Amino acid sequence: MEQQNAIKPYVIGLDLGGTNSVFGIVDARGEIKATTAIKTGGYEKVEDYVAACVDALQVIIEQVGGIDKIKAMGIGAPNGNYYKGTIEFAPNLPWAHHGVVPLADMFSKALGIPVALTNDANAAAIGEMVYGVARGMKNFIVITLGTGVGSGIVVNGQLLYGHDGFAGELGHVTMVRGEEGRPCGCGRTGCLEAYCSATGVARTAREILAKTNRESLLRELDPEKITSLDVSIAAGKGDELAKEIYDFTGKMLGEACADFAAFSSPEAFIFFGGMVKAGELIMKPIREAYEAHVLKIFKNKAQFLVSGLDGASAAVLGASAIGWEIQ
Amino acid sequence: MEQQNAIKPYVIGLDLGGTNSVFGIVDARGEIKATTAIKTGGYEKVEDYVAACVDALQVIIEQVGGIDKIKAMGIGAPNGNYYKGTIEFAPNLPWAHHGVVPLADMFSKALGIPVALTNDANAAAIGEMVYGVARGMKNFIVITLGTGVGSGIVVNGQLLYGHDGFAGELGHVTMVRGEEGRPCGCGRTGCLEAYCSATGVARTAREILAKTNRESLLRELDPEKITSLDVSIAAGKGDELAKEIYDFTGKMLGEACADFAAFSSPEAFIFFGGMVKAGELIMKPIREAYEAHVLKIFKNKAQFLVSGLDGASAAVLGASAIGWEIQ
Repeated sequence: MEQQNAIKPYVIGLDLGGTNSVFGIVDARGEIKATTAIKTGGYEKVEDYVAACVDALQVIIEQVGGIDKIKAMGIGAPNGNYYKGTIEFAPNLPWAHHGVVPLADMFSKALGIPVALTNDANAAAIGEMVYGVARGMKNFIVITLGTGVGSGIVVNGQLLYGHDGFAGELGHVTMVRGEEGRPCGCGRTGCLEAYCSATGVARTAREILAKTNRESLLRELDPEKITSLDVSIAAGKGDELAKEIYDFTGKMLGEACADFAAFSSPEAFIFFGGMVKAGELIMKPIREAYEAHVLKIFKNKAQFLVSGLDGASAAVLGASAIGWEIQ
Repeated sequence: MEQQNAIKPYVIGLDLGGTNSVFGIVDARGEIKATTAIKTGGYEKVEDYVAACVDALQVIIEQVGGIDKIKAMGIGAPNGNYYKGTIEFAPNLPWAHHGVVPLADMFSKALGIPVALTNDANAAAIGEMVYGVARGMKNFIVITLGTGVGSGIVVNGQLLYGHDGFAGELGHVTMVRGEEGRPCGCGRTGCLEAYCSATGVARTAREILAKTNRESLLRELDPEKITSLDVSIAAGKGDELAKEIYDFTGKMLGEACADFAAFSSPEAFIFFGGMVKAGELIMKPIREAYEAHVLKIFKNKAQFLVSGLDGASAAVLGASAIGWEIQ
C-alpha cells in the first residue's frame, strides 16, 4: 500500500446527508485537500443526482492533480449497505424512497475508481481508526449521539457488519423493558436512542421539569420547544437541573456500555456528536455508571474517549476513511 | 492445510471441567478416534496435573499412530484466556485458584505440538463452525444454557475475543434493571444468567409456584429442591405450569437475542445445553419473543438452531476444534 499511496495519495469522501452532499479529497493523514458540496434534494432520479455530484467533483479532482491521484471513494450515507454498496429505503432521500439504489457501483462507473459505502456511524468508526483517537486500536466502539444514536463497532481491526451488513445498531438495544419504555422512532419502545438522542435528552428535560418545581434556567423556555442545545447551554451556566439531565443520560449510556463490554470487550468507547461538547458533564456519569455496572473482569479496563474527528469535517473524514479500507 | 491434514489428520481436544478432564483425538470431520479421561482434582501443583494428563494421553496418541499424526491440541476450560493461553483465577481448579496458569504453553512443551485454549462457550462456537450446524457460517452466536449461561460469538468467520480475550459474556447482559433484578452469581443483579441458567429456571419455578395456587406436577416436589430437570420432565408430561416456566425463560432469551442482533446481526443463534432437549417448548417462545422485539431490519432473517454437537462428546469436540483454528 505504501507505494500505491505514493502514486495515489488521496481518497474522496462523500458525506451524504438528507440536505447536503459534502465532498472532500483527503490524504492519508486526514488532511482535507479540497472540498465541495451540492444539495442532496432536487433530483428525482438517482442518475441526475450522481451526474450533479460528478460535475461538482471534477473541479476539486483537477485541483489535486486529476483522477490518477485518487485511490478510491468512500460514502457515508443513511441506510447504507456496505456489502451491496446500496442505499436501501432511505426515507429522507427522494431518489431512494422506495427501493434499493446501487450508489457505489454508479459512482465507480462514473469515476473509474473503487467506491465503497456504509452508514454514517460505521464511517465515523473507520474515521477514528484511520485518522482519529482509535489509531492503533483493534477493538473499540464508536457511539454517535445526534438526532439518533448510532454506532460503529470494530473487532479484530475490522468493522462489524454482520451477515447482512446491518450490524452495529446499538441505539436500538432495549434499556427499559415493558410498558414504561419510551416510544422510539423505530416503532419499538425503551431503546437507548429514545433516551440518549437529542430528542431523547429534550424529552428527559420536559419530564424532569414537569415532575418537580425546582428552579432552572430551562423554565424560561416553552417546554415543548426545549432542545438538547438548550440543555447544554443551561448546564454550561451551572444549572443544576440541566446537570441532572446529563447525569440521567450519561447513566443510561454507561449502563448500555456495560452490556456492550460483555459483548465485544472493547479497549475504548468513543463518543461522537454534539452532546460530547459538554465534556465531563456527560463523560463523568457515563464512566461512573459503566464502572458501577460492568462485569468484574472488565472493570477499569476500557477507555472513554471523545471523538478525535469532531467538528465540521468529521463526517467527510469518516466517509473518506472507507476509501482507504477498500482492498 | 489440505496437505498438512493428510499428514497430520488429528487434533487433541481437552474438555477441562471442575471434576473431570476428558480427552479426545478427533479427525477433521468430527469423528472421535480415541478418548480417555482423568480426574481434574487431586493435584496440588499444575505440573503434576499436566504430567498426569500427558501420561493418559500417551496411550491414546499411540492408538492413532503417534504424535506425528497430531496437528495441534485445543483446550476448553473455565476462565480460559485465548490470547495468553492461560487459566486465570478459576475457583473450581485447586491448582489455578489464585493465579495465572500458562496451561497452553505447558502442554505445548510436554507434547511438542501447538496448543490453544479458550473458555467452554467459545470452544462450543468453534465446534459448531468446524463440525456442527454452523458449518459455512461466518456470523453466528452460540448460547450455552447450563449451570450458567455462556456464549461464543463468531463474526467474519472469527471468534470474537475482544481486546483482553474475555468478550462474549452474554450471560451477563442486564435484562432486568434496578432493584427488581434477581441476584446473579457474578455479584450483580438482573443478568440473563440469573433467569435462564439451570438455577435460574429452578428459581422461576419456585416463584411461579409460590405466586399461584395452580395445579402442577411440580407441587409434588420440595420447592427448595426443584431443578431445571424436574421442570423439563414435568413439561414433557404436558404440565401447563412447567410450560409457562419455559415460556418465561424463552421470552427472556428471545428478547436478549433481539439486542444481540442489534450488535452483530448474526445469521443464526445456536443453543447448546441440557435445556434445549425440551425442543419446541423452549425454542418456540425464544423465536416468538425475538421476532416481536427485534428491530424491523432484522425481522425474519435469523435462524434459531439447536446445537449439532449436543451430547456427551460435545465439549471435547468443541475443545478439539480450537486445534484446527491454530494458524
